[in-house]
Amino acid sequence: MYPKSFASDNHAGVHPAILEAMAAANHGDSPAYGGDTWTSAFEEKTKETFGPDANGFPVLNGAGANMVGLALMLGRYSAVICADSAHIATHEAGAAERLLGVKLMTVPTEDGKLRPADIKARLGGLGNPHESQPTVVSISQTSELGTTYSPAEIAALADAAHESGLRLHVDGARIANAAAFLECDLKAVTTDAGVDVFSFGGTKNGALAAEAVVVLDPSLAHAVPFLRRQSLQLASKMRFISAQLSALLTDDLWHRNAAHANQMAARLADGLADVPGVSLAYPVQSNAVFATLPHALAEALQQRYLFHFWDESAGTVRWMTAFDTTPEHVDDFLDDLHKAAGA
Amino acid sequence: MYPKSFASDNHAGVHPAILEAMAAANHGDSPAYGGDTWTSAFEEKTKETFGPDANGFPVLNGAGANMVGLALMLGRYSAVICADSAHIATHEAGAAERLLGVKLMTVPTEDGKLRPADIKARLGGLGNPHESQPTVVSISQTSELGTTYSPAEIAALADAAHESGLRLHVDGARIANAAAFLECDLKAVTTDAGVDVFSFGGTKNGALAAEAVVVLDPSLAHAVPFLRRQSLQLASKMRFISAQLSALLTDDLWHRNAAHANQMAARLADGLADVPGVSLAYPVQSNAVFATLPHALAEALQQRYLFHFWDESAGTVRWMTAFDTTPEHVDDFLDDLHKAAGA
Amino acid sequence: MYPKSFASDNHAGVHPAILEAMAAANHGDSPAYGGDTWTSAFEEKTKETFGPDANGFPVLNGAGANMVGLALMLGRYSAVICADSAHIATHEAGAAERLLGVKLMTVPTEDGKLRPADIKARLGGLGNPHESQPTVVSISQTSELGTTYSPAEIAALADAAHESGLRLHVDGARIANAAAFLECDLKAVTTDAGVDVFSFGGTKNGALAAEAVVVLDPSLAHAVPFLRRQSLQLASKMRFISAQLSALLTDDLWHRNAAHANQMAARLADGLADVPGVSLAYPVQSNAVFATLPHALAEALQQRYLFHFWDESAGTVRWMTAFDTTPEHVDDFLDDLHKAAGA
Amino acid sequence: MYPKSFASDNHAGVHPAILEAMAAANHGDSPAYGGDTWTSAFEEKTKETFGPDANGFPVLNGAGANMVGLALMLGRYSAVICADSAHIATHEAGAAERLLGVKLMTVPTEDGKLRPADIKARLGGLGNPHESQPTVVSISQTSELGTTYSPAEIAALADAAHESGLRLHVDGARIANAAAFLECDLKAVTTDAGVDVFSFGGTKNGALAAEAVVVLDPSLAHAVPFLRRQSLQLASKMRFISAQLSALLTDDLWHRNAAHANQMAARLADGLADVPGVSLAYPVQSNAVFATLPHALAEALQQRYLFHFWDESAGTVRWMTAFDTTPEHVDDFLDDLHKAAGA
Repeated sequence: MYPKSFASDNHAGVHPAILEAMAAANHGDSPAYGGDTWTSAFEEKTKETFGPDANGFPVLNGAGANMVGLALMLGRYSAVICADSAHIATHEAGAAERLLGVKLMTVPTEDGKLRPADIKARLGGLGNPHESQPTVVSISQTSELGTTYSPAEIAALADAAHESGLRLHVDGARIANAAAFLECDLKAVTTDAGVDVFSFGGTKNGALAAEAVVVLDPSLAHAVPFLRRQSLQLASKMRFISAQLSALLTDDLWHRNAAHANQMAARLADGLADVPGVSLAYPVQSNAVFATLPHALAEALQQRYLFHFWDESAGTVRWMTAFDTTPEHVDDFLDDLHKAAGA
Repeated sequence: MYPKSFASDNHAGVHPAILEAMAAANHGDSPAYGGDTWTSAFEEKTKETFGPDANGFPVLNGAGANMVGLALMLGRYSAVICADSAHIATHEAGAAERLLGVKLMTVPTEDGKLRPADIKARLGGLGNPHESQPTVVSISQTSELGTTYSPAEIAALADAAHESGLRLHVDGARIANAAAFLECDLKAVTTDAGVDVFSFGGTKNGALAAEAVVVLDPSLAHAVPFLRRQSLQLASKMRFISAQLSALLTDDLWHRNAAHANQMAARLADGLADVPGVSLAYPVQSNAVFATLPHALAEALQQRYLFHFWDESAGTVRWMTAFDTTPEHVDDFLDDLHKAAGA
Repeated sequence: MYPKSFASDNHAGVHPAILEAMAAANHGDSPAYGGDTWTSAFEEKTKETFGPDANGFPVLNGAGANMVGLALMLGRYSAVICADSAHIATHEAGAAERLLGVKLMTVPTEDGKLRPADIKARLGGLGNPHESQPTVVSISQTSELGTTYSPAEIAALADAAHESGLRLHVDGARIANAAAFLECDLKAVTTDAGVDVFSFGGTKNGALAAEAVVVLDPSLAHAVPFLRRQSLQLASKMRFISAQLSALLTDDLWHRNAAHANQMAARLADGLADVPGVSLAYPVQSNAVFATLPHALAEALQQRYLFHFWDESAGTVRWMTAFDTTPEHVDDFLDDLHKAAGA
Repeated sequence: MYPKSFASDNHAGVHPAILEAMAAANHGDSPAYGGDTWTSAFEEKTKETFGPDANGFPVLNGAGANMVGLALMLGRYSAVICADSAHIATHEAGAAERLLGVKLMTVPTEDGKLRPADIKARLGGLGNPHESQPTVVSISQTSELGTTYSPAEIAALADAAHESGLRLHVDGARIANAAAFLECDLKAVTTDAGVDVFSFGGTKNGALAAEAVVVLDPSLAHAVPFLRRQSLQLASKMRFISAQLSALLTDDLWHRNAAHANQMAARLADGLADVPGVSLAYPVQSNAVFATLPHALAEALQQRYLFHFWDESAGTVRWMTAFDTTPEHVDDFLDDLHKAAGA
């Protein structure tokens, strides 16, 4: 058995309450493809969480949630403005280009976050038939660098997008971590901030495999069932996906899991402060710690722990915590880091 | 709670052994995206089952398995020859056309099954730059009409395809039911029959959500990881998919589930024989019973049971059985059918 | 030099008036991409010909006109209902599937022509997320079998389409031949019949390379410049395309060319009547003569003349006439046919 | 009539020798789609010009040549490394993303030109299934900033690409201007430098509408006819395209036109040297002059002359010359510039 992985929140297993919810859903027959009571219950919880105009659609993974959600807002000659570190731009194997046929207008950023001025600066080609037409701004919450947009920052992006006729999409694979860090509810960083469509991530927050496309502008919801089916994101026995999502939205499990993971990341960051040669690369605002350290030190630690270089030439690594990371895991890791750094 | 559904094998829940295997996989951390021991175990079982050249890749659903498998064998101007009833042609929301960009050369059939002559008849445009170029023949095993190809029939199709430089793909969403009906092992209808790539279906046979792309020609396997990721079919916590597939391939669970479902379909078909006005539309060779009956009778039965018209104008319905259909379920259904028909 | 070809109206050269118009356009500089006065003049002629709501957009070839025109009316999960002989389904190398990502719901026909009942019969999946959603009916005028839709027939198709929320598209590669045969103007078979978008063909009617997408519903016109550019159909020196189209619409050149070609086809058909073993396969309603004749006879004639089998197994050939086919060409051909048949 | 445009070499008309060649091709019937003697002649001239392994395929426009040429070298999860100013990335309306489904890995450059190190720096994701896989490097010759790659520079890029298993593509919309500037023949910057596939541009160099895909690696040529047809780039009356291309390759017309245009650009650049507030933005190495000047001055000149800002915020404009730009045109323009600058 491996020691605790710090490579990814995807390396963790499934929270017991979620496995239990899945087992409880294994009860006789029920209609396939979402015509079941577990999916209805999730739909209801979506409205309770995100407001009466929100429609939630369970899907199978995060890239799927992003592709279905974006497709709702794209025509045949559209572009999406996003950070150059965006998951859709870097780690979804070109799905955006091939499945959506869209141009990603990528923006260099310091901290993984877009600003309103980044949007304005990319609208020069609007109306020019030689250029892809931006129709969506997509941000990641948290960003791929572990940073978090405040509600006000999202609202400013939504305003900038909407003023020019664009929509705002959020890749919320770790939206729970963001809300927990911001000490707000999920609605504050979505519905209340003017988001149009977002991906609600469950898998990185203790689910087995469960994400949802949440559509906040009801005029866009009609197309989801067709796009979800065509995009290979329709679960036939959907009740087992919906049950996971409902479990996350019950008794604030989403918040408990995310807040705990964030605390473990903060504990890790705090413990790094006095290790010589190690510094934080970005502010720690979620369950990710990006650190810069000597290669030899990183490699010594990799002998024992799973984690990856984020930018090998810069000497930056990413350490992730999860719902099941314990203080002991962190402290052991820090001990080993101190020892290796001292050697 | 619903009475037993006869609408789809997707309406059934999950076999207990499969849920247990998933729970057992929830044990500490493990690498994501297939770098885990459960996935290695499934890869090994794939080779045991289908031969040493077979490579199995877990994916999330049946349409996904089909799209990834077909993509391996298609260029930019390719066509796929398939029955006009093929799932890829009728019920995957145009994924083949949109995600693969492929033309489906659909062939009318009497019983859902292609014949070698159907292939030859569609090769007239080979080499003509004005026409899509067929590079793949795709069959469904079982067919969408519940019929089954024998190993010899598949081998004849493989020969016909290969002679003209085409590949043979099998949509095996219900391949277990086919093998169980044919009283052969899975290898007999795949590797031994000359199939190049097939979808190995688990979900309709008692899994929660688990299918695999199985590549029998090793020269095609290299591209799967890229295509699976891009096609939104990569599970991050893959161990939970692999564990399901391995469970199906352990102690012949695949066969027990499928053979049972087939027996229940046979029992249902037998019981129909003396119901006035009801006749079988196709031979019963799996877990599907297609029957033709008066609309009023079908609708009376639909008051109590979930099932769909297959062809409303022809008065044909499809009744499916599953791993968990019991003789009592069938007998109750037949009782109700007799009563309704007698009224 | 070849004798007159009967293989295709594409084998003919360019009408002198059209070459002259192109040469006349070679006069100093002018803005590229349609910002020139020749294009403005064509746009004006489009409105004169097809009514004030018509917008005409020059493109480079017929498949391009079809793809741009169809794209205006298709979403991501759309289907097009068309004859199984439709050019978009058979001879555009899968462009519809690959560039548009669309499913073609092909309809077998007796004479190349769709009927309203064909539309209704393919709407069963509307609203079902497992199926591609038909949003367009596309017909060819003339059909690929040389037959012609009357204005009333088109209007009936437009009504059937519009009643179900679909649009009517016309592949008018030979729309001039159709209108000339029907003895009506171009508006009668387009605007007045309820067509939404059509391809206006010039190349087969004496142009060098000139087609247009004509949009009759102004709400659809906005997207054309973007789609034309993206679909590789934008001519930089557009004046030379527009000049051709305007020449066709000047002094009824379109009608003179098409009517003449039709007359030559009629002359050819008349001359066949008494050739033993030769019969018409379809009514002659344009510049195409489809004949069934013994293989040996066809092959004897192919020694001297260029033409193709349409359906080799049925012994059907297609003979096309063009704007520059002369009575002598036809009579020589008939002489040779008589001689070969008599031998 | 407009004064001479400095906005684009697309604003020029057609060289008389090219119009004459087109008229000469209008001689009786000939097979369509390239089965004619004019196309054979062009194919032969391609081999004479670029070597016996070169295969040339006429197409309709530059974006079409690029898309067909690139498609030859791309799979379903491929990326193209190119400059962020590349025409395929900026001015083809997202055709690369939508028609090819490809990710463009764009590289910031100082002068529009890629360097070998830019290639190496983008290969970090090779083999990683989460990332698009670069298979092609595409450069523009001349670059979009008017700069020119020497034969040695191209060879270095070809080596860097080939060492990592990538191909080298050249968008040669203005390749004639590059060769003329370099005082070499066309083969020196293509075949001899290790290019795999390139677009041979005619339209900007005096043709009406004529480009070609030239394939230097014969193993790639097989697919062109299919891709050309599907990509809407097949001219039915191809003889009129081929005749233009052959005319350019006859008596060095390509060189005469390009060298003249380059000389006019050099004359313009020379004349700018003493205008206060006006400076060259990039070295003048073709028929493009990029200059930085005060907005008010640019706008004053735009009252009389057609040209565009390239980068409005930087105050950079692009002035293009063409085969038919005369010394008087340039001198008049310079006079007006001096006057406006003096005011």
